[in-house]
Amino acid sequence: MATTATAWTAAPRGAAALVWMMAAVPVLAADPPARAQTPRTMDEVLQATTAADWRPLEPENTLYLQLPQGRVVIELAQAFAPLHAANLRTLTRQKYFDGLAILRSQDNFVVQWGDPEGKRSLGDAQARLPPEFTVKATAGLPFEPLADRDGYAPEVGFSQGFPAARDPARGEAWLAHCYAMVGAGRGNEPDSGNGAELYVVTGHAPRQLDRNIALVGRVIKGMELLATQARGSGPMGFYEKPEQYVSITSVRVAADVPVAERENLEVMRTDTASFRQLVEVRRNRRDDWYQVPAGYIDLCNVPIVARPRP
Amino acid sequence: MATTATAWTAAPRGAAALVWMMAAVPVLAADPPARAQTPRTMDEVLQATTAADWRPLEPENTLYLQLPQGRVVIELAQAFAPLHAANLRTLTRQKYFDGLAILRSQDNFVVQWGDPEGKRSLGDAQARLPPEFTVKATAGLPFEPLADRDGYAPEVGFSQGFPAARDPARGEAWLAHCYAMVGAGRGNEPDSGNGAELYVVTGHAPRQLDRNIALVGRVIKGMELLATQARGSGPMGFYEKPEQYVSITSVRVAADVPVAERENLEVMRTDTASFRQLVEVRRNRRDDWYQVPAGYIDLCNVPIVARPRP
Repeated sequence: MATTATAWTAAPRGAAALVWMMAAVPVLAADPPARAQTPRTMDEVLQATTAADWRPLEPENTLYLQLPQGRVVIELAQAFAPLHAANLRTLTRQKYFDGLAILRSQDNFVVQWGDPEGKRSLGDAQARLPPEFTVKATAGLPFEPLADRDGYAPEVGFSQGFPAARDPARGEAWLAHCYAMVGAGRGNEPDSGNGAELYVVTGHAPRQLDRNIALVGRVIKGMELLATQARGSGPMGFYEKPEQYVSITSVRVAADVPVAERENLEVMRTDTASFRQLVEVRRNRRDDWYQVPAGYIDLCNVPIVARPRP
Repeated sequence: MATTATAWTAAPRGAAALVWMMAAVPVLAADPPARAQTPRTMDEVLQATTAADWRPLEPENTLYLQLPQGRVVIELAQAFAPLHAANLRTLTRQKYFDGLAILRSQDNFVVQWGDPEGKRSLGDAQARLPPEFTVKATAGLPFEPLADRDGYAPEVGFSQGFPAARDPARGEAWLAHCYAMVGAGRGNEPDSGNGAELYVVTGHAPRQLDRNIALVGRVIKGMELLATQARGSGPMGFYEKPEQYVSITSVRVAADVPVAERENLEVMRTDTASFRQLVEVRRNRRDDWYQVPAGYIDLCNVPIVARPRP
């Protein structure tokens, strides 16, 4: 299921859709159900949402990664990695990333970009940052628990639109390595990351990375541009020849881009009754195709939907 | 982590590897550890394996899907979907798939191929098959349990090299929708699948499909050729224009291919002490990079490694 493309879907096609089998994204119902009726599918849930179920992206917390193939929109996780977010804004505003490259694409794992030469100056940005692998799970940190148990953490759920986990005993919370999450590469020393080298999860959630590295955001749009990058033939999916690199045209903070050129997106809130309904219709699929509802949903299988603002 | 590329890795590269961060596939140790030493990493486990830890692919249970970009090797799950495997052999030997196309690529979900026109004759193959969604969990069905709990099934583990699940109370076992698993598309009727339209999981494991559709095998090599197919812009990732289809050059049963043209692969057995060691070093990463071993592993994060036969 696509976390971002969902709300752009319309009606199914002809011949090829005959055996379309598993409706990851059920087709929009012709007649939206009345509010009082319990929604059966994700599209029925989305149809029934109101403006209050959505939030716009904050321009200061949004990055545009421009590739030759198109634009990737990243929302920064300000509450979980404020120092990395600030460093990324500094790097971006210095045009640090412009002309750098995607260096790595490892199948079922990550793509990663940065400086192929490792020579570009960080300018005013920090070279090392305290490891923002976890934050204090204070009362002030929004957290919408998912009822379903998780193997990697005592508790999982959502915090301001990001998949997250929490350990009440340790008083810690952290972001989860789900598909489309963005992290800051580091060396063996925990404080050796700074945001100058970023990776995005393109495969099955590598949750073993949770609490071991700073997640700094999530791809909201354009994930397919990263996920389809040719895999590198070197160890860990690194490209072996410079001509295989994919050049980064630019990275910009949305706030610095003229309004007319910004992406006009909104993201479904994760702290609403509508979102809890969405989780439930995904936990137990009720459309005609399914024979056995799972009765469970894995954190990283919950779609956090984005769409163009109406 | 790549399930198939692992054993092909060698040594890391220069500049770009400086901040390589999370070693999904740790680099081969320069000095293989002695057998007596407990392996710390996956590569140490693999280094210490013997011939008895590996099995060749059975040519009658192996399909070669030839795409313009290269060859995809699929192992059929004979024990879980014998009727689908037989139908696939019949279709393949009639050259049913030759000249058909990849019709769908949905981000973080599946690619799917079949007959764009829906007109090609199935010949001697069955048009409908009993739904092989589960099998009886008899004493004769090999099953290597994974100690880690799972949200989607009472028990998970491995059966003859495939990720699987089991419900002792119902006496049923089934294959799990992990990355690279291959399934047979169907319509709303459970017996409407026949193998003529196949899909492969290219995203986070859509485990909600378990027990709802017949899984028929697993991609052993060439997964990156499927995972990088451009996403379709239509609903559910279907391509909207015939010129976007990716043509299937041919599909062949390996047994029908001259020996010299076969892939010479072996797959790690999933019922050995070495495999249990591999699971453990992935459950608790002990290499220097990790700060916090997860203490848990999700079924679909366990790599089932393939490599060229020595």
